[in-house]
Amino acid sequence: MIPDTQIEGWLREDLGHHDVTNEVPGETTGRLVAKASGVVAGLEAAQSVFDYLGVGVVDALEDGAAVDPGDELLRVEGPARDVLRGERVAVNLAGHASGIATATHEAVEAARSESDDVRIAGTRKTTPGLRGLEKRAVVAGGGDTHRLDLSHMVMIKDNHVAELGLEGAIEHFRERVSFATKLEVEVETVDDAPRAAAAGADIVLLDNMTPDDVAAAVDELEEHNVLAEASGGITLADVPDYAATDVDVISMGSLTHSAPSLDLSFRTGA
Amino acid sequence: MIPDTQIEGWLREDLGHHDVTNEVPGETTGRLVAKASGVVAGLEAAQSVFDYLGVGVVDALEDGAAVDPGDELLRVEGPARDVLRGERVAVNLAGHASGIATATHEAVEAARSESDDVRIAGTRKTTPGLRGLEKRAVVAGGGDTHRLDLSHMVMIKDNHVAELGLEGAIEHFRERVSFATKLEVEVETVDDAPRAAAAGADIVLLDNMTPDDVAAAVDELEEHNVLAEASGGITLADVPDYAATDVDVISMGSLTHSAPSLDLSFRTGA
Amino acid sequence: MIPDTQIEGWLREDLGHHDVTNEVPGETTGRLVAKASGVVAGLEAAQSVFDYLGVGVVDALEDGAAVDPGDELLRVEGPARDVLRGERVAVNLAGHASGIATATHEAVEAARSESDDVRIAGTRKTTPGLRGLEKRAVVAGGGDTHRLDLSHMVMIKDNHVAELGLEGAIEHFRERVSFATKLEVEVETVDDAPRAAAAGADIVLLDNMTPDDVAAAVDELEEHNVLAEASGGITLADVPDYAATDVDVISMGSLTHSAPSLDLSFRTGA
Amino acid sequence: MIPDTQIEGWLREDLGHHDVTNEVPGETTGRLVAKASGVVAGLEAAQSVFDYLGVGVVDALEDGAAVDPGDELLRVEGPARDVLRGERVAVNLAGHASGIATATHEAVEAARSESDDVRIAGTRKTTPGLRGLEKRAVVAGGGDTHRLDLSHMVMIKDNHVAELGLEGAIEHFRERVSFATKLEVEVETVDDAPRAAAAGADIVLLDNMTPDDVAAAVDELEEHNVLAEASGGITLADVPDYAATDVDVISMGSLTHSAPSLDLSFRTGA
Amino acid sequence: MIPDTQIEGWLREDLGHHDVTNEVPGETTGRLVAKASGVVAGLEAAQSVFDYLGVGVVDALEDGAAVDPGDELLRVEGPARDVLRGERVAVNLAGHASGIATATHEAVEAARSESDDVRIAGTRKTTPGLRGLEKRAVVAGGGDTHRLDLSHMVMIKDNHVAELGLEGAIEHFRERVSFATKLEVEVETVDDAPRAAAAGADIVLLDNMTPDDVAAAVDELEEHNVLAEASGGITLADVPDYAATDVDVISMGSLTHSAPSLDLSFRTGA
Amino acid sequence: MIPDTQIEGWLREDLGHHDVTNEVPGETTGRLVAKASGVVAGLEAAQSVFDYLGVGVVDALEDGAAVDPGDELLRVEGPARDVLRGERVAVNLAGHASGIATATHEAVEAARSESDDVRIAGTRKTTPGLRGLEKRAVVAGGGDTHRLDLSHMVMIKDNHVAELGLEGAIEHFRERVSFATKLEVEVETVDDAPRAAAAGADIVLLDNMTPDDVAAAVDELEEHNVLAEASGGITLADVPDYAATDVDVISMGSLTHSAPSLDLSFRTGA
Repeated sequence: MIPDTQIEGWLREDLGHHDVTNEVPGETTGRLVAKASGVVAGLEAAQSVFDYLGVGVVDALEDGAAVDPGDELLRVEGPARDVLRGERVAVNLAGHASGIATATHEAVEAARSESDDVRIAGTRKTTPGLRGLEKRAVVAGGGDTHRLDLSHMVMIKDNHVAELGLEGAIEHFRERVSFATKLEVEVETVDDAPRAAAAGADIVLLDNMTPDDVAAAVDELEEHNVLAEASGGITLADVPDYAATDVDVISMGSLTHSAPSLDLSFRTGA
Repeated sequence: MIPDTQIEGWLREDLGHHDVTNEVPGETTGRLVAKASGVVAGLEAAQSVFDYLGVGVVDALEDGAAVDPGDELLRVEGPARDVLRGERVAVNLAGHASGIATATHEAVEAARSESDDVRIAGTRKTTPGLRGLEKRAVVAGGGDTHRLDLSHMVMIKDNHVAELGLEGAIEHFRERVSFATKLEVEVETVDDAPRAAAAGADIVLLDNMTPDDVAAAVDELEEHNVLAEASGGITLADVPDYAATDVDVISMGSLTHSAPSLDLSFRTGA
Repeated sequence: MIPDTQIEGWLREDLGHHDVTNEVPGETTGRLVAKASGVVAGLEAAQSVFDYLGVGVVDALEDGAAVDPGDELLRVEGPARDVLRGERVAVNLAGHASGIATATHEAVEAARSESDDVRIAGTRKTTPGLRGLEKRAVVAGGGDTHRLDLSHMVMIKDNHVAELGLEGAIEHFRERVSFATKLEVEVETVDDAPRAAAAGADIVLLDNMTPDDVAAAVDELEEHNVLAEASGGITLADVPDYAATDVDVISMGSLTHSAPSLDLSFRTGA
Repeated sequence: MIPDTQIEGWLREDLGHHDVTNEVPGETTGRLVAKASGVVAGLEAAQSVFDYLGVGVVDALEDGAAVDPGDELLRVEGPARDVLRGERVAVNLAGHASGIATATHEAVEAARSESDDVRIAGTRKTTPGLRGLEKRAVVAGGGDTHRLDLSHMVMIKDNHVAELGLEGAIEHFRERVSFATKLEVEVETVDDAPRAAAAGADIVLLDNMTPDDVAAAVDELEEHNVLAEASGGITLADVPDYAATDVDVISMGSLTHSAPSLDLSFRTGA
Repeated sequence: MIPDTQIEGWLREDLGHHDVTNEVPGETTGRLVAKASGVVAGLEAAQSVFDYLGVGVVDALEDGAAVDPGDELLRVEGPARDVLRGERVAVNLAGHASGIATATHEAVEAARSESDDVRIAGTRKTTPGLRGLEKRAVVAGGGDTHRLDLSHMVMIKDNHVAELGLEGAIEHFRERVSFATKLEVEVETVDDAPRAAAAGADIVLLDNMTPDDVAAAVDELEEHNVLAEASGGITLADVPDYAATDVDVISMGSLTHSAPSLDLSFRTGA
Repeated sequence: MIPDTQIEGWLREDLGHHDVTNEVPGETTGRLVAKASGVVAGLEAAQSVFDYLGVGVVDALEDGAAVDPGDELLRVEGPARDVLRGERVAVNLAGHASGIATATHEAVEAARSESDDVRIAGTRKTTPGLRGLEKRAVVAGGGDTHRLDLSHMVMIKDNHVAELGLEGAIEHFRERVSFATKLEVEVETVDDAPRAAAAGADIVLLDNMTPDDVAAAVDELEEHNVLAEASGGITLADVPDYAATDVDVISMGSLTHSAPSLDLSFRTGA
């Protein structure tokens, strides 16, 4: 669900107080078209923009669809003035989200060369205001949302461990967290991985480790009923090496904070 | 000015209803540190996040400062709980804006090899909700905001021209626009450039032209008191060729929609 | 575009928590009718109020239409409860905006006796929360919006000049302002007008000058490619004298901050 | 209380995305000064604007104070950038509210020539978004708020009477309204006034009657324990005649919808 | 009227960023059904939730209707995804409001055993954010809203009396309050009741008195044209004793702050 | 974190446009005091209300503290006007949240008689707008939040099972849910419990079962590595019987939707 107040804010920031060039009479058709190949996302958001403006959505691809140059993602019909008002916001949203979906899809493909089931996950390194849109774009690209917000899963980090010790920190938060919430523990060394698992982690995050160390830690974790996640500056080029380690999850901040926009254009008229 | 309601929304989307891991007693210091070289921006926004949370800002670089790995951008002090609550939003904002400033700075540097005064400008292809932040990041990187919203400047596009003719469209909007507003006209051919200028454009946008065509159009415009802007899929690699044409402005959507985030980290504790 | 959140706020402030007298069954027709002669504006806003409430708009004049007593501006149909809920807000909006349009129209008419093309412009002296509505009402009355907000055009004022000198201030802001933005300079003396033009102003504001001084300044500016604006306490009675000076723009704060509401009534039932 | 979200909205609409001219270093003092005589109001709102921006309020008059040209209403100190950002909104608010207070004061003075205790009251004909500010400005000018919103007091109007009859409508709403709420009935003829009182009105509104008819109706109401209000297009010039009728309340829409702004200026620097 | 921004906020807090289980294809019917006997309220709010989501409301009871287990309160039809999204918020709203209506109805019934016309009223002890919903639920249960907010009626309390004396406080606020507003005075002793009435109270609140003292105070007030209200920790069991005193109003905070929710369920599918 | 916009909304709904009785000069002290025994919660929210108003918080208990009549929960100091403005909202919040904490504490105590470690959990049956406050109040009372929103944990319900079968539904959602998210499955029979566990549930919800059936299902689940939750109309009186079954979690909607408010009073002055 894209909240109306957010759509309203996006339109206000683009229109300003008196948008003379949109004062065009009559009805028109608008088509959102791919200029590059990729995986689309954000189309529900783009549709919501036109809904808010009273413009009808005639046709739309589903998030997650693959497109090539020339493919139509979305078609709308309505008063020319309102179609034009929604154009820029809709393109910016869909281009941004589709860029994330496309980058995720590339990482998933890269991983599949080495592993059938490793998950490619996003992080909390999202653009402020667009957390939900970006997480759903990661899903559209075949990835995993990872935790949606701080309340979704407990993550024990180095500063907690520094203060309470590894086992102490896990015990501390295990007591405070709901039965509905998973608990992940970040470790910096191979040796700490089984310690974290033994102390009660549901997931062990292997932070900034080489693929070899990840493989070693995954080995150590085999006897524990936990998941292992590799994280920390992993690029698309690194994905196959990490995928080959049998780790369960590879998370990449770049999916949301550095994916280039997918090139889209909006065409009005018959 | 970063509106409080926006900061509140950013924090809510990251915290959720019950953020157990931030329940840490005592005071702490937080430092935002560069892990890569670049030009910083978004620091006013990052400070506003901590202000909202009641965390004191001890020191901060100015937007536009150049940093290298290890440089400190921002230092805050306050209750550990509130420092931790602001961390992720502040890093995401500053990393995003600094990525834009850094990309802009690179384009400006590339242009300077061929021209002392061509302006590198952003476009309206910004992330919904972050128009102001991103435009100011472009400025921090040495660029030009271009128009801030649809009401800031009139831009006559192909669909207007298709309906009213080039001169007709210019006359139509000249009558409707305030004396305080500039009027830019988008043209697709070298021949249309002087026609647009003669008909009253303040700025002529040379859309999707090769550097050679841009140079030819700039020649044609010399006798007119107008500015010339080159736009349309121009990449960092293309910048010097366009800069060499004597065009006044080179605008690039990629500055805001595809700049990778600048790598920053946030460290808490003494 | 009138934002939904603003309409919602306007209705909430008028309805309160339990508006007993609007609990009327059945459907009704509501008609907004002029009780005085004038030029109408704000009808898009009034329609948006009824749209928000789910009341259908059957007919409406265009902003800028001239009306006489008894003329119908707007007709709506829907549940009596919702028609009644929208009545007061709609009348207040339309009466306020139409008062501004009417005052603007009177000033334009007064100017036309002496000049065919001088523009009558509003200022930033608008009612907080209604900037867009009031600027569009000025346009409906035949006037010019002037700058819409501080980011729309740079205005160099006496405090800038006091600090940097006239030429210094112009140079300072010329470097900082986008190519998309005009730069206006406020001067207090006839002699400063050509100095400002020579230093790079796009528009020279002749502040608080007599018509004779304005005429003299306009003379001095003739050789420069700039616009001249007269401003500062100009009343409807003064307009012809200023219009006779060949100045390009006459701006009047009173258009928005002191125009009396146009007398309108709202009638329900068959 | 002026809500922060409203202040934020007012500032955003005036600043836009990049307000270059406010980027002034250092601290400054700002003084809000009267250029005309009147009664001030809206100063709490003006202070809240500066509070929001982190600018300190050094001194301020109380709402309701009388001022002459040159008198200082408000003095603030803080970063020049933030003082400048608040200037226009603060002046627009205080000028608008003080205009209402001044107009109310004039009407009260006019009434006092004929009556010691008649109340001059506002109506619901206020500017959308500013109901509370304007009602408090009426009070600052010596007037009475009248009902603040539709839930504050029940007002039975001609459309209710047309459907249910005068006594029927009063009985209908008496059953539905809280014991905490007064009930006013609008009548068009002298004869209906005592009927409304007998049927249970707390207040009888004498709508669009001449002063003579108002006087007659007041006579008829004398034996009833009700208040009488005269309303409908009453101007400042009419006030003494209505005040002489012994009516309890004279209400005037013009106080809020047509009062000219009080002329104020804002001066920065030492 | 339920504001859209409030509905949006309620849905956001329940859905989070990615609500996987609602991703169900097709259309469905949803029915809100009573599992216990009571009086319904909040159905307008529940409908507004589904309206916001684009789900059609097919049938609905009126607020104030009595229901038994198995009775249908509301039926909606639309996309399964959107019906499911609205379910929890709609049930929570209707269950909460119906709980208040039911508790009010029980109190009214208890009072009717002893008095035909005593009013059962709510207080300002409502759940923050739901004042209007809860006040209308009290009305649906046959009760009286009492004052809706602090501006609706003046209530003079012990702290005012402590400072100004009983008569002094009444005189002080009588001068400051609009003719449209009633004035209630809280007294702690039987003797103070007629003093308050004589000094100008419209309503006398008998605070924390036994039924015998209330009866005595009501006797003392008989000759005055005022209403008497009993308040302070009155439970359902106490209602008949207070109702027998001839007091006009019995107000109970428990109606809104402690009424258990009415048990409702929501069933989807054919 | 209590968002400022929510606090602002709560204050606006209680104050209205002109709250005359709060216009009290000078400074005062306000004390929130218990009139009944219980466990406190919502004090952070109450403090935030006073912070918003610029009133200083001098002392406050921690959420989760036990209080007896006369104990002070919160002490504030500031302008009398602002203390009075915050009073009602603060009391309503703290009374509501403390009522939930107290009811939770009673349920936990009841469970402890039979089990050392069964968790008492809330549900999503919370008051719209107060999800976070109420969940944290459950924690203050010694309970478990259960899932915070629909995105926090996947819950497979009867309608999913009806369409896809038990194993089919679990497989369907297991593929769609993040590794960070737990998956709970609702079953109606003892036999379905081990089926759900075998198919991949993290938690099995035993819906509307008798304690005997819960005990039988818990037995069946022993060999699976899952948690068992009992839910469905469980009252305080039922808690010991369910606690005796060795179930892991007992969840109760009544904790949030039907807990009576804890009786608190607010006293101003020395």
